[in-house]
Amino acid sequence: MIENRKEEHIKIAENENVVSEHNFWDDIRIVHRAIPEVDFNDIDTGVKFLGKQFNYPILISSMTGGTETAKIINKNLAMTAEHFKIGMGVGSMRVAIKNKNTADTFSVINDYKIPAKFANIGAPQLVRQDSDSLSDNDIEYIYNLINADFLIVHFNFLQEMVQPEGDRNSKGVIKRLKDIAGSYNVIAKETGSGFSKEDALNLLDAGVKAIDVGGLGGTSFAAIEYYRAQKANDEIKMHTGKAFWNWGIPSPASIKYCSLGEPVIGSGGLRNGLDLAKAIMFGATLGGFARELLKDANTSFDDVKRQMEMIINDLKITMMLTSSRNIDELKHARYITLEPLRSWLEVYK
Amino acid sequence: MIENRKEEHIKIAENENVVSEHNFWDDIRIVHRAIPEVDFNDIDTGVKFLGKQFNYPILISSMTGGTETAKIINKNLAMTAEHFKIGMGVGSMRVAIKNKNTADTFSVINDYKIPAKFANIGAPQLVRQDSDSLSDNDIEYIYNLINADFLIVHFNFLQEMVQPEGDRNSKGVIKRLKDIAGSYNVIAKETGSGFSKEDALNLLDAGVKAIDVGGLGGTSFAAIEYYRAQKANDEIKMHTGKAFWNWGIPSPASIKYCSLGEPVIGSGGLRNGLDLAKAIMFGATLGGFARELLKDANTSFDDVKRQMEMIINDLKITMMLTSSRNIDELKHARYITLEPLRSWLEVYK
Amino acid sequence: MIENRKEEHIKIAENENVVSEHNFWDDIRIVHRAIPEVDFNDIDTGVKFLGKQFNYPILISSMTGGTETAKIINKNLAMTAEHFKIGMGVGSMRVAIKNKNTADTFSVINDYKIPAKFANIGAPQLVRQDSDSLSDNDIEYIYNLINADFLIVHFNFLQEMVQPEGDRNSKGVIKRLKDIAGSYNVIAKETGSGFSKEDALNLLDAGVKAIDVGGLGGTSFAAIEYYRAQKANDEIKMHTGKAFWNWGIPSPASIKYCSLGEPVIGSGGLRNGLDLAKAIMFGATLGGFARELLKDANTSFDDVKRQMEMIINDLKITMMLTSSRNIDELKHARYITLEPLRSWLEVYK
Amino acid sequence: MIENRKEEHIKIAENENVVSEHNFWDDIRIVHRAIPEVDFNDIDTGVKFLGKQFNYPILISSMTGGTETAKIINKNLAMTAEHFKIGMGVGSMRVAIKNKNTADTFSVINDYKIPAKFANIGAPQLVRQDSDSLSDNDIEYIYNLINADFLIVHFNFLQEMVQPEGDRNSKGVIKRLKDIAGSYNVIAKETGSGFSKEDALNLLDAGVKAIDVGGLGGTSFAAIEYYRAQKANDEIKMHTGKAFWNWGIPSPASIKYCSLGEPVIGSGGLRNGLDLAKAIMFGATLGGFARELLKDANTSFDDVKRQMEMIINDLKITMMLTSSRNIDELKHARYITLEPLRSWLEVYK
Ligand SMILES: Cc1cc2nc3c(=O)[nH]c(=O)nc-3n(C[C@H](O)[C@H](O)[C@H](O)COP(=O)(O)O)c2cc1C
Ligand SMILES: Cc1cc2nc3c(=O)[nH]c(=O)nc-3n(C[C@H](O)[C@H](O)[C@H](O)COP(=O)(O)O)c2cc1C
Ligand SMILES: Cc1cc2nc3c(=O)[nH]c(=O)nc-3n(C[C@H](O)[C@H](O)[C@H](O)COP(=O)(O)O)c2cc1C
Ligand SMILES: Cc1cc2nc3c(=O)[nH]c(=O)nc-3n(C[C@H](O)[C@H](O)[C@H](O)COP(=O)(O)O)c2cc1C
Repeated sequence: MIENRKEEHIKIAENENVVSEHNFWDDIRIVHRAIPEVDFNDIDTGVKFLGKQFNYPILISSMTGGTETAKIINKNLAMTAEHFKIGMGVGSMRVAIKNKNTADTFSVINDYKIPAKFANIGAPQLVRQDSDSLSDNDIEYIYNLINADFLIVHFNFLQEMVQPEGDRNSKGVIKRLKDIAGSYNVIAKETGSGFSKEDALNLLDAGVKAIDVGGLGGTSFAAIEYYRAQKANDEIKMHTGKAFWNWGIPSPASIKYCSLGEPVIGSGGLRNGLDLAKAIMFGATLGGFARELLKDANTSFDDVKRQMEMIINDLKITMMLTSSRNIDELKHARYITLEPLRSWLEVYK
Repeated sequence: MIENRKEEHIKIAENENVVSEHNFWDDIRIVHRAIPEVDFNDIDTGVKFLGKQFNYPILISSMTGGTETAKIINKNLAMTAEHFKIGMGVGSMRVAIKNKNTADTFSVINDYKIPAKFANIGAPQLVRQDSDSLSDNDIEYIYNLINADFLIVHFNFLQEMVQPEGDRNSKGVIKRLKDIAGSYNVIAKETGSGFSKEDALNLLDAGVKAIDVGGLGGTSFAAIEYYRAQKANDEIKMHTGKAFWNWGIPSPASIKYCSLGEPVIGSGGLRNGLDLAKAIMFGATLGGFARELLKDANTSFDDVKRQMEMIINDLKITMMLTSSRNIDELKHARYITLEPLRSWLEVYK
Repeated sequence: MIENRKEEHIKIAENENVVSEHNFWDDIRIVHRAIPEVDFNDIDTGVKFLGKQFNYPILISSMTGGTETAKIINKNLAMTAEHFKIGMGVGSMRVAIKNKNTADTFSVINDYKIPAKFANIGAPQLVRQDSDSLSDNDIEYIYNLINADFLIVHFNFLQEMVQPEGDRNSKGVIKRLKDIAGSYNVIAKETGSGFSKEDALNLLDAGVKAIDVGGLGGTSFAAIEYYRAQKANDEIKMHTGKAFWNWGIPSPASIKYCSLGEPVIGSGGLRNGLDLAKAIMFGATLGGFARELLKDANTSFDDVKRQMEMIINDLKITMMLTSSRNIDELKHARYITLEPLRSWLEVYK
Repeated sequence: MIENRKEEHIKIAENENVVSEHNFWDDIRIVHRAIPEVDFNDIDTGVKFLGKQFNYPILISSMTGGTETAKIINKNLAMTAEHFKIGMGVGSMRVAIKNKNTADTFSVINDYKIPAKFANIGAPQLVRQDSDSLSDNDIEYIYNLINADFLIVHFNFLQEMVQPEGDRNSKGVIKRLKDIAGSYNVIAKETGSGFSKEDALNLLDAGVKAIDVGGLGGTSFAAIEYYRAQKANDEIKMHTGKAFWNWGIPSPASIKYCSLGEPVIGSGGLRNGLDLAKAIMFGATLGGFARELLKDANTSFDDVKRQMEMIINDLKITMMLTSSRNIDELKHARYITLEPLRSWLEVYK
């Protein structure tokens, strides 16, 4: 069941046009520094994220698990995380609870030395739906399964709304989150619609250690569900997928909304190292990549590695050309913001 | 005569591209709430409209009557209104006065239990044109014909201007409206060009109980008349239709202009429940759908029902994702406004 | 020589895409009045222009003369001017001075009762170029040739710059203009690039009685010259035509710049009565049409007449739908201004 | 090696679409002056640039050298510079140091009387890279090779970043520049990404005599390298070329940033004399043309000459139509600025 759905998600994300109509990173333009006074070879891209040292401000975003394909993808991504010394998340681990046979599709990443591993569960599973919520034991189980450093709780209520099998209760989520945040280093994450400032305040209040914005501009789960519905000839779900295709808060805007003291991960629509640099400039500590890595991860480690090298090269070029010797300096580079993103930055003013 | 014209309108509205160049609902973007703390099943979409209880803030807009096709459409729409417990209007009832044989194409809706029924006459018929104005008896007749709860007086002077047979006098309309408003619960309605603030003030002064904005963004009667003229090879009317195709006040702007104390119905260009939610957020009590329901209403009850289910589902998803447990809370959701709509919101500042 | 050039201008204006990339009348949107309280039949479109009574605020702009085709066009336009009781200009009359045989291609309009006839000479001919400037006798001659009420002096230095035969001296124009303005009712007119505020101040200072803005948005003489150059295989002139295709001040902006007390004629890019109404709303006393009438004028009186009826119908509809019983009330209708026109309105702030 | 690369650059620049997505000169619109009161023949386009008299405010930008093709190009450009009495730069002269056989591909320009000759070296070569930096003798050699009046030091770190063979150290550039600026009239120049205000302040502090902005809007070296990579089947470099295709500061914005007292050369994306005039109006003393001249320069002197005549004609027309008798007056012509350029002008406010 879940396995099939996850498999479908991957295929669709790889092969269809599942992104939102506009990528808001394009609304940010960086002020070039022609005289960097920097040696490219001296550029230090290292960052500390909640006590963990990364060679690059990059997180491989939570994507998959539960199937044979997923195992291969997770393995290739883990090799990449180890190789570049960056963080890595796995996809939602609920399936591993329901079906212990699938455990190794996640734990495969334990074979690699990864600076920080992020377990993953969905916020909808924190509370009672048609089925029971995840128990404390369930969470302990999946956390230990990959020797996780952080527990990502992903908020994907748009997706739950547009998919037929969706969990549609969100009441009590914050209360349960507070409990869990007492026992684990919890990171709250959206999956393509971003967090508002109200959300962010609630999250910090609940004790999360960081927020991964997962904003609008890249993968749209409404789009993915549209394609699933199309295959299933389900006109109603096709309608919904289309109507909410572009729903959400642009990733860069959400970074600003969520910058309230705790670290922010900028994600949603990152295509290259230039977008990554913009996320950092907007205030993120890390930038998260999902769909951009998916196809290569499904092919071979070499392919993801090459992709990652391109991203890193872009990042370093952007640092060079903004006269930034390190990530802290990059945060002070100048930029301009164009419409429609500009309007989003005025929401809370 | 009128019957033929009405039949043509329906065919053209169903088959041609009769909408304005831009749909202004797209200029509104809603701030997503990733952590709704709402149970989808708890969402209460009920509203009270001038004392009547609706299950959803939806009005099936006035469209048709007078022909056999119209009777089928009205029947299917009435079944829908009963099924979902929402309001329903019928098309202009002048034809029923002139030709009593057509009465049942309207009264067919009396077989269904509808929370609120809206009779419909045109403002041009309130005053003397080439022919006489409607008498008080005429109005009483059509009001009783459907056991109406409200009397919609629609203002469609653009349409009157662009169609060959148009009634072109509007002098005295407000005076007559005042009289009628003493005897009936009158609602003033535009048909695709919206009301200005000056209009709205005059209407409230005349004693109308609510305003249905019927703004620019959806069905354009100039466009419809363009196609009629094309068929009739009437170059002059084609010219006029084209020139005024995009004439009018965007629906969301008109909602703002008309929000002066009495309830407002937001209509014109609503395509789905997301647009509907935006109308509510802008201040409307109900959202009105016309063209979007037409084709399905001309097919079967099941088809309109499915269409309505999609609209309601969209609405509830939007409520969920703005953390709105009920319509009142939806009204407080955050949004941004983009150009060109933004410029329209500055007219009266 | 001149005759050939003029003939070519007409052919190109009729058959090629000679308009600027953007029509700025589209940047103006009018606030609809759904309840006009006006009877269409009562609408009074009459205006007084410098003592002359017009039935409509329309001027048939100066276009042609000097050839047999021109004679036909002028005749058809004159019949139209008589029929609708509106003003009419003829094209540059220099040719009639140089070649007296062509006199009747202008004086043909004397057979018709036209409320106001506008003689026409070019500003470049007021001063010495390679050839002599027009003498006072020359001016007296052409003025009397059509029993003119006004003398239009057109400023077309862009055209002079882009055409091979162009007169390229503009020094002394204002001085000579002052002289002439002592003897005739002079109107200054641009031909597609508009007047700036500095220009307007100089013109009023020189004693002109009105300004016809002839702004950017419609016929572009750079475009016309581009096509002429193309035919002549003149790469350099093609380059110039392209470079200056969109040069000039948008017509609506120029109306604002020139509104300094004396009447303004709004022209350049008027396509219909809606554009005409916008010109009036921006402050013009008359709106001028050129290219829009050309093709029909070259066909038959009936064709121009029908075209003019459409324009007038549009105008009256716009008046109706802005609740304007007369031209004065139309001037107070509300509108919004969008980009890029909006930026042009800030130049002198 | 370098020779091959340079040859490739020329071929690609001539044949592929190597310009940025948007040309920002289009965001500037000039206020027309219909009554210039200027005689075209009196227009004085002469300017003084750091003591040198030019007949036109034009610089033939640094482009080439080192190959037989380059020699032809340089010869044709030199004839043009002599003919019009304007300044001329040659391409980077490093090749002449490494390979003395190529000296005449630069010194060919010595046969012509050019008001100002600009030697050219790259900023990256001022400091140690994988290879040694240029010595003082090297600089003296190339300076004398063309009897230069000025030494252009070009900053092209974007290009260095995107090309495989790139020099990637920029540390110490300003220090070395300061030394050299003690001995030569140094001009700092970008090559398509513009200078920021911070850059400009550093340059003036280092003692440069002028800044050539070389901004975004025309030739994009990222684009050129994209095509080179495509030919070489180098996916990584293709990726980088694409990612940075539109990187940089728009030329007009950079002119504003760099206007800090010393003369500024406006370049990057100039296509004609209208763009040139805009550069002057924004504050530049000269406008620099590169790619626009390349193809013609590779054909014949007659072709470049004709191209230059078109540019000059445009310039003079613009001067005429802004009522500017000389370059100083042109600087005071009015204009408006549209988005996205407008946002760039607010960076330092
Ligand atoms: C195929 C696929 C599966 C995903 N599965 C998960 C998941 O299980 N848990 C999660 O938190 N996010 C999941 N995501 C969301 C991503 O982590 C990310 O937030 C989102 O795709 C936006 O980033 P992008 O535009 O870079 O793809 C998934 C994304 C994709 C494309
Ligand atoms: C075929 C058709 C017939 C209509 N007839 C009427 C009518 O008789 N009375 C009325 O008030 N509005 C009438 N309308 C206008 C609609 O009620 C509505 O105001 C308008 O179509 C804009 O809404 P829409 O964009 O959802 O179609 C009609 C609309 C259509 C498409
Ligand atoms: C074929 C043609 C000939 C014209 N000849 C003249 C002329 O002789 N004198 C003049 O003042 N304007 C002349 N004009 C300019 C028009 O009067 C008018 O200012 C200009 O075309 C812009 O208006 P439009 O966009 O409505 O065409 C001519 C225009 C056209 C198209
Ligand atoms: C083929 C080619 C070669 C160039 N070589 C040099 C060079 O050697 N030194 C230099 O300073 N700029 C060089 N440039 C950059 C130009 O001088 C100019 O700054 C840039 O092309 C932007 O101007 P444009 O848009 O007018 O082409 C070169 C440009 C081109 C197209």
